[in-house]
Amino acid sequence: MVAMDILTFFTPTEIMGLDGKANVIVVFDVLRGSTTIVAAFKAGATRIIPVVDLDQAVRLAFKLGREDVLLCGERNGEPIEGFDMGNSPLEYTPDKVEGKTLIFSSSNCSKAILASRNAKRILIGCFNNIQAIMESIEQPSTIYLLCAAKMGRFSFEDAVCAGMFIHIFMESYSGEIGLNDASSTSRYLYRQHHRDILGMLKQSSHGNFLTKLGRQQDLEYAALVNSETIVPELSLDKNYIIPTVAIKQL
Amino acid sequence: MVAMDILTFFTPTEIMGLDGKANVIVVFDVLRGSTTIVAAFKAGATRIIPVVDLDQAVRLAFKLGREDVLLCGERNGEPIEGFDMGNSPLEYTPDKVEGKTLIFSSSNCSKAILASRNAKRILIGCFNNIQAIMESIEQPSTIYLLCAAKMGRFSFEDAVCAGMFIHIFMESYSGEIGLNDASSTSRYLYRQHHRDILGMLKQSSHGNFLTKLGRQQDLEYAALVNSETIVPELSLDKNYIIPTVAIKQL
Repeated sequence: MVAMDILTFFTPTEIMGLDGKANVIVVFDVLRGSTTIVAAFKAGATRIIPVVDLDQAVRLAFKLGREDVLLCGERNGEPIEGFDMGNSPLEYTPDKVEGKTLIFSSSNCSKAILASRNAKRILIGCFNNIQAIMESIEQPSTIYLLCAAKMGRFSFEDAVCAGMFIHIFMESYSGEIGLNDASSTSRYLYRQHHRDILGMLKQSSHGNFLTKLGRQQDLEYAALVNSETIVPELSLDKNYIIPTVAIKQL
Repeated sequence: MVAMDILTFFTPTEIMGLDGKANVIVVFDVLRGSTTIVAAFKAGATRIIPVVDLDQAVRLAFKLGREDVLLCGERNGEPIEGFDMGNSPLEYTPDKVEGKTLIFSSSNCSKAILASRNAKRILIGCFNNIQAIMESIEQPSTIYLLCAAKMGRFSFEDAVCAGMFIHIFMESYSGEIGLNDASSTSRYLYRQHHRDILGMLKQSSHGNFLTKLGRQQDLEYAALVNSETIVPELSLDKNYIIPTVAIKQL
């Protein structure tokens, strides 16, 4: 088997200005952007447009036609005034989102997705769909794992999720896999916490913050490993995310 | 005992724009900036001026008087053409540096030191002086640990060294210590590798790179835990680093 690389980046800044090019970038924002995007597609959303700037999100909603579009997102873990939906996966039910276009502006996730420009494919991963993400990637590939982080700073839960991806990918691939320091670290962190993902989320700084906001149920939802087979993928020419389903390639 | 915080930042970018203020920032660039700075003071250098830009370093050397000053640093692990010294701690012997002012421009370390503006004290730490660093900090304090990282990306050896600091600090302090996600991760990495610091350095991406450059001896030197009691400290009003010696306060 051919040697391949899995390189992890703990913050969006770290992926900028790289010389190399990945076949695939997987963006992880476990609490809660990635988890919410998967939940929204499960509930029947047709496409999700990631936007960083709030004004731009509002302008886009009016341009696309306010009745077919939902404005979604959060700032500092709280819903945005005037927006239709926040960033809790539990809000995203079929009666609200089925057949809709979602404009999605979260503090960290949208920024990470839009920083992921230098790849052929950009996928959105979380604990809910980690196996499906793995199965949707052709082997061998150069894979970048991008942790959305929190306000540009390292977040534990994204690193553990990246580590889970590395762990299951290495089990499925018999060739040599090169890891950078952040990949080795993520893999260690996953091994340490794999028996209790919910406990790990509660321990994490942002999980702790969300629990204080009364969002304990979001942590329970985010901790459901492989509950979904949806693989959200950024359509590079159209700049929005669509749901795909993994086809096991092994 | 009063509660206190130790917050770790894996890259210099992460420390920028923080609202809070630390009593102390410790900058770690184990391979090799911090280690070299400690070695230079051990060999009798009187002060070290950190500079990011090479042209600025050269201009400053001529301004200060070329005969009393050594131009030191590296780019991509290699010495800089026209400079007096590279970034290997083993080069810094008394016959070369005693009584001299060093202008020091390393790819990552100088940048990290100069990013550390928002604190009362800025110290330079590595495995060689970790106990001395710990003993020179008043308790309780809000402490930031800044990993210099490599080209703005996570580096394993700096995180392990930060983790060692956290480990020994927590052993010496009986009050509650708040850790951010990066601090918990660093502590975990240290615990996993504390029995074989040299092995960890060899495993790290930059350690591996330096070994390929023939700098294996630098790794052996950097792995000497608590071989020195020098605490390099940035003199904030004068913008240069001077050597101090820890006074055990416990």
